[in-house]
Amino acid sequence: MSPYHPLTEQEAIDIARGIPGVLAADGDVTCREIGDGNLNLVFHVRQPSTGASLILKQALPYAKVVGESWPLSLDRARIESEKLILEGKLAPGLVPKVYHADHELALTVMEDLSSHVIMRQGLIDGGAYPLFAEHISDFMAKTLFFTSDLGMNQQEKKLLARSFANPDLCKITEDLIFDHPYTDADTNSFDPHLAEDAKRLRSDGALHLEVALLREKFLTRAQALLHGDLHTGSIFVTEQSTKVIDPEFSYYGPIGFDIGAVLANLLLHYASQEHWSADAASREARRSYLTSTVRDIWTLFDRKFRALWNEHGADRVFRTAGYQDDYMLRLLQDTAGFAGAKMVRRIVGLAHVADIDKIPDPNVRAAAQRLSLAIGTA
Amino acid sequence: MSPYHPLTEQEAIDIARGIPGVLAADGDVTCREIGDGNLNLVFHVRQPSTGASLILKQALPYAKVVGESWPLSLDRARIESEKLILEGKLAPGLVPKVYHADHELALTVMEDLSSHVIMRQGLIDGGAYPLFAEHISDFMAKTLFFTSDLGMNQQEKKLLARSFANPDLCKITEDLIFDHPYTDADTNSFDPHLAEDAKRLRSDGALHLEVALLREKFLTRAQALLHGDLHTGSIFVTEQSTKVIDPEFSYYGPIGFDIGAVLANLLLHYASQEHWSADAASREARRSYLTSTVRDIWTLFDRKFRALWNEHGADRVFRTAGYQDDYMLRLLQDTAGFAGAKMVRRIVGLAHVADIDKIPDPNVRAAAQRLSLAIGTA
Repeated sequence: MSPYHPLTEQEAIDIARGIPGVLAADGDVTCREIGDGNLNLVFHVRQPSTGASLILKQALPYAKVVGESWPLSLDRARIESEKLILEGKLAPGLVPKVYHADHELALTVMEDLSSHVIMRQGLIDGGAYPLFAEHISDFMAKTLFFTSDLGMNQQEKKLLARSFANPDLCKITEDLIFDHPYTDADTNSFDPHLAEDAKRLRSDGALHLEVALLREKFLTRAQALLHGDLHTGSIFVTEQSTKVIDPEFSYYGPIGFDIGAVLANLLLHYASQEHWSADAASREARRSYLTSTVRDIWTLFDRKFRALWNEHGADRVFRTAGYQDDYMLRLLQDTAGFAGAKMVRRIVGLAHVADIDKIPDPNVRAAAQRLSLAIGTA
Repeated sequence: MSPYHPLTEQEAIDIARGIPGVLAADGDVTCREIGDGNLNLVFHVRQPSTGASLILKQALPYAKVVGESWPLSLDRARIESEKLILEGKLAPGLVPKVYHADHELALTVMEDLSSHVIMRQGLIDGGAYPLFAEHISDFMAKTLFFTSDLGMNQQEKKLLARSFANPDLCKITEDLIFDHPYTDADTNSFDPHLAEDAKRLRSDGALHLEVALLREKFLTRAQALLHGDLHTGSIFVTEQSTKVIDPEFSYYGPIGFDIGAVLANLLLHYASQEHWSADAASREARRSYLTSTVRDIWTLFDRKFRALWNEHGADRVFRTAGYQDDYMLRLLQDTAGFAGAKMVRRIVGLAHVADIDKIPDPNVRAAAQRLSLAIGTA
């Protein structure tokens, strides 16, 4: 193919036909662009006669959010495909298979996961995922441990970090999570009934100091190669299966940032039960499921990360008595902090979550929003 | 020039003659290789008729230490010349001028500083450098602040960090400072009379935990672009002038590592006064000079770094109330920790310092060594 241009559906089909072992040589193929058009084109290519299908994801050279448009590096597509391939090696079965990547076209061709649902929507629809804590703790323990100085050669880690410098997408996080929610930024967006709550956030000095410290960690703490955007909208699930997608924000950062993202989004969903549960009893049951999942994710992560450390620790110094406990405690502290920052920004910042925003009654929505802010700031 | 090969003296002269504005077109030129041959060739090119002179430093593709030889990336010459040029911009007058760099030849052509002495030797010879604290605090405050997220665009910082990934030379530090002194490593080297002291270091669990935490910081804390080897052997001085050389260990790391290196080497020299001072009174005076210098370096660094922060802070979040005090306190803690680790390794690890090793009387030397270990471990 020639240098970068947005693909047509016909071009997507031609590329899909060129992938060995997926589509049959004969048999019609259909293609539908199913992306939201804000950041990427997403082509769903199917062959009805065989049932085979695949996804082509192509990055666009800009981001469009609430009418704004700004340039965004196409290198994020290279980062996404390389990270997906690495995740597939470190945590087999927990990410879509990558069939092909073309860095010039900013294109990744991968497994079609339409048998799964996006976890955020699945939760909103009342779904429960009994294996999720097991799967996501597995994904995080393996991808984070084996890309950290604890679990890989420390010189190779420096070279890996070099190839995952990701300034454009880190900038989005630095601004939208660690800055704008605490000041009067144009990008902020919240319901009018939250004006006083947002104002309190802007004058809470103790909170500002904690957020500044979290932001420093995000900027400087090259602990492991993160997914970087691990919310429930980046996770496909069924009751039996979990697949993590969209690692375009991947970079070397603090481990707690990934864990915190998962927990924050479960807790936002917890807060949204003001609406989604039909009555008090079902709300209680649903919340118990969610808090158990939060607890299990940390507990399982902690256990698995320590087990990997004990079995595959990269060197002598990391076996120093007391060091592992000290490290895991700091991870838990970081996790709590990042989870809090991620909850706050989803209420008053630019990007919200459907769990909360789709609550129709403004009073019920306000209660869910305030509960989210209370958990997040605490 | 053709691809890499070690230069001859004649080739060094030819290159020197090609640098505009240093040597006169006519007039004989002499060349002498003055390196120690372990890591680099260093050619001193002079033109007696004009008094002009310059230095050509060429990296060798290996390191030789105590008879061992191991391969070492020539990329360190690129890192050294790029860092010298950047330091020259950020802290004018405090590094040698770079006239020319050739990355293929792993060569930097720079200002001749033979009017200066290496500070370690200057101190051993009884020299005092009244402007040193002012100069070195200036060098550190400017080079560290303006390469940190506090003082430069945070996206450009990520790209700068990418070009200063320096795995080979970081490996030397990771092993020789943060690992080997605390275990029975072949590289360790110490006087037989220190056998018991070294053994105690190998079984001090509380110390091992602190060293593991410092090593984690060295591995993961991308705060600023460090010099990376800022001991008194990397600093040329006169009473009026300070020039920092040899930044081949440069990489993005914890700021306290650079400050700690300076302080550790002043304190090693303090400990060596067991020998170098003629009597108790002069020893007292000398030690007072050294501790005042240690205090002044931190105090001036703290004042200057804060002033740069207040005037040139890169963004809003870094002006959060209480954040600067918190940050500077952590820098002081890091500085103390790294200084300690650097003192210990100079006594029992691979690379020692002449201040201590050149004390002829083994009993006096032992006292200086034990004082260094006591300060370092404390």
